[in-house]
Amino acid sequence: MAASPLDPNHCSIVATLNALGDTWSILVLRELFFGVHRFNDIRTELGISRSVLTDRLNRLVELEVVRAVPYQEPGERVRNEYRLTRRGAALLPVMVSLMEWGDRHVNDGNGPVTLHDRETGAKVRLELRTDDGPIEPNRIVPQVRADLARI
Amino acid sequence: MAASPLDPNHCSIVATLNALGDTWSILVLRELFFGVHRFNDIRTELGISRSVLTDRLNRLVELEVVRAVPYQEPGERVRNEYRLTRRGAALLPVMVSLMEWGDRHVNDGNGPVTLHDRETGAKVRLELRTDDGPIEPNRIVPQVRADLARI
Repeated sequence: MAASPLDPNHCSIVATLNALGDTWSILVLRELFFGVHRFNDIRTELGISRSVLTDRLNRLVELEVVRAVPYQEPGERVRNEYRLTRRGAALLPVMVSLMEWGDRHVNDGNGPVTLHDRETGAKVRLELRTDDGPIEPNRIVPQVRADLARI
Repeated sequence: MAASPLDPNHCSIVATLNALGDTWSILVLRELFFGVHRFNDIRTELGISRSVLTDRLNRLVELEVVRAVPYQEPGERVRNEYRLTRRGAALLPVMVSLMEWGDRHVNDGNGPVTLHDRETGAKVRLELRTDDGPIEPNRIVPQVRADLARI
């Protein structure tokens, strides 16, 4: 039998997917990145049920990917809004990789959103690289840490 | 209400997640990238049911992310094995972004797999960049195509 060189239980892809739970979490993170921070606003944007959103936000807070920040509108009770932590911002490449593929292969190269450097306006892209420069996917091979390799 | 600047229905992140269906698809793609190409091998690796794997492979073939290639072992019937297409290899950044985050934030910086240039052995990483060089996530802002902007 052809086995992959790594027991899937050790895989960091699985680890991240399990940590996030499901794709709702990625969409919640997208809203935060887009500047939508309040429970009801996120809920309306995503058309998601109150209980699913509560569950995903709690999970993301527990993961320290999102933090809750109290705020109070005049005459209302204190509520939380949600902000990406540094650890959460580190998930941006996950969102960008999904976005770039969708731009190219679902939306025919004409994506609805572009990303820019806040300061210079320069366009941002995601790139697979070595220290020598960009590299094509078909030149990339995985290598398993010696103590975990099965074959 | 704070709305995100883009109607979520136009979002390429959603488009990619919907196309893939669910996280099983990402794990199937990982197996193919790791060199596991045959139905029963993928099934054993992932501990996935026959019907779920059939469904996900059909979906990936329909998306032209994977292609079926017939093979025949002596004395057995013709079967298919599955290969990433160019369009499928273009999903590698999605896998790598999940992997890098899991390496750092779940596996304490000590990930089980590293990626290398097949020819030089140089280590491969994923990088958010502009033409000026790498950029930190907190400097990146999204911009919506004028004809789709809501606010």
